[in-house]
Amino acid sequence: MTHFADRLAAAVERKHSQLVVGLDPFPDRVPDPLAFCRQIVDAVADHAVAVKLQSAFFEVRGADGVRAFEEVCAYAREAGLLVIGDVKRGDIPTTADAYARAFIPLADAVTVNPYMGGDSVEPFVDACRREGAGIFCLVKTSNRGSADVQDLELADGRPLWHRVSELVHEWGSDVIGVNGLSAVGAVVGATYPNEVVAIRRLLPRSVLLLLGIGAQGAKPTDVAAAFGAGPASALVSASRSIIFADSPAHEAQRLAAEVWDLSQ
Amino acid sequence: MTHFADRLAAAVERKHSQLVVGLDPFPDRVPDPLAFCRQIVDAVADHAVAVKLQSAFFEVRGADGVRAFEEVCAYAREAGLLVIGDVKRGDIPTTADAYARAFIPLADAVTVNPYMGGDSVEPFVDACRREGAGIFCLVKTSNRGSADVQDLELADGRPLWHRVSELVHEWGSDVIGVNGLSAVGAVVGATYPNEVVAIRRLLPRSVLLLLGIGAQGAKPTDVAAAFGAGPASALVSASRSIIFADSPAHEAQRLAAEVWDLSQ
Repeated sequence: MTHFADRLAAAVERKHSQLVVGLDPFPDRVPDPLAFCRQIVDAVADHAVAVKLQSAFFEVRGADGVRAFEEVCAYAREAGLLVIGDVKRGDIPTTADAYARAFIPLADAVTVNPYMGGDSVEPFVDACRREGAGIFCLVKTSNRGSADVQDLELADGRPLWHRVSELVHEWGSDVIGVNGLSAVGAVVGATYPNEVVAIRRLLPRSVLLLLGIGAQGAKPTDVAAAFGAGPASALVSASRSIIFADSPAHEAQRLAAEVWDLSQ
Repeated sequence: MTHFADRLAAAVERKHSQLVVGLDPFPDRVPDPLAFCRQIVDAVADHAVAVKLQSAFFEVRGADGVRAFEEVCAYAREAGLLVIGDVKRGDIPTTADAYARAFIPLADAVTVNPYMGGDSVEPFVDACRREGAGIFCLVKTSNRGSADVQDLELADGRPLWHRVSELVHEWGSDVIGVNGLSAVGAVVGATYPNEVVAIRRLLPRSVLLLLGIGAQGAKPTDVAAAFGAGPASALVSASRSIIFADSPAHEAQRLAAEVWDLSQ
């Protein structure tokens, strides 16, 4: 399997898009997640480079929801989209290995949580080596509460997310694709533009997955700096503002074009 | 529903046990997780106060594995055991709420990851208020790599896990049961006895879920200090050393008795 970042870069160039559409089938708005997500995939496949499935909104429906998650992953890949499993897992090594095998190769990439440290992330990095997977490690998240832990000031005066960025850089240093980007990327809240700039500098070889565009209030112009390492070096994810729009296709096309222009 | 810590304290007193048996059906050792876990539940129900299901080892089997997870939860509760879902979730508020609803009341309690901060944990605390659930927040985990992030030195000279302990204390301060224990507990690696002592002091009202006994190398005597807030103020979890023993019932009985003596 080709390196994740190389598959991603090829898709970005082919589609002129860095848009990731977040598939968040909220239970109170979406009775049938499989039918709903297929419809969105059909609508956005030409405009988005990837879809990001929020696992919680499938898991909340029990085993049937997890079956739908699996089927949506397959349907989206069939439609030529990369698939990101937004699962934010992290556990001790033997357990993390089981999580990696649960989601790769169902998805091309997953989000992971760094709190438990390097040996908890290593099984996912191993899936990058073994199966051409990608991971996006939480660094500075889009929610207000992210300050509680991620912004804590370290002894050297830096915020915690600064040090976590360095760790992500280390973890991804031996899984670099031919285009120079690592299979180990970072999740950064588009709601924190200053942090986006700093993390771009700290992680010159990582793909930044920018969350919080749309319903959470961030705008594409807030994150233009993220593309400093090339057109495929950042992905902009929007969920509710697209999937619940009157025309998801139109909204995806509009946002993809806006982001593409910013990246040039 | 009665408060989680009150249900727990009653069960600890009734069974004279603080033992949690970890149900870790490793895929390469356990072909049928439902049959395997039922057998373990039958063997340990009299000796353990709870079982802890490691979600990854069910999720790695896809939707069928998740169905087995659900069925094992029901079977264990039927057998008079409390059920802890070891899921280590953490996400933005709307998503965390979906996770809370996915696992409560299937399980009595779940493990959560604090990296995303207070608003990511709040939906789980709300499930504590609403449904008598409990949560165990990762503070200092049993793996070697836990040092990478959790031990980082803060500007005030303390390690990060120290500050996370304070946050856990705050998050649990308005969900205290009649016995004085909070519904918000903490996951602490029994492999770090000094940290167990310090976290016991920082979290006088939290139940400590001590992981890493047995296969990961920690011994019950390493964690005797954890019981400083009463017999139900700490739980000792062991997985592989019990579930893969020649006689899980005998091993559970032996370990439960050893821990009970330490707590008196």
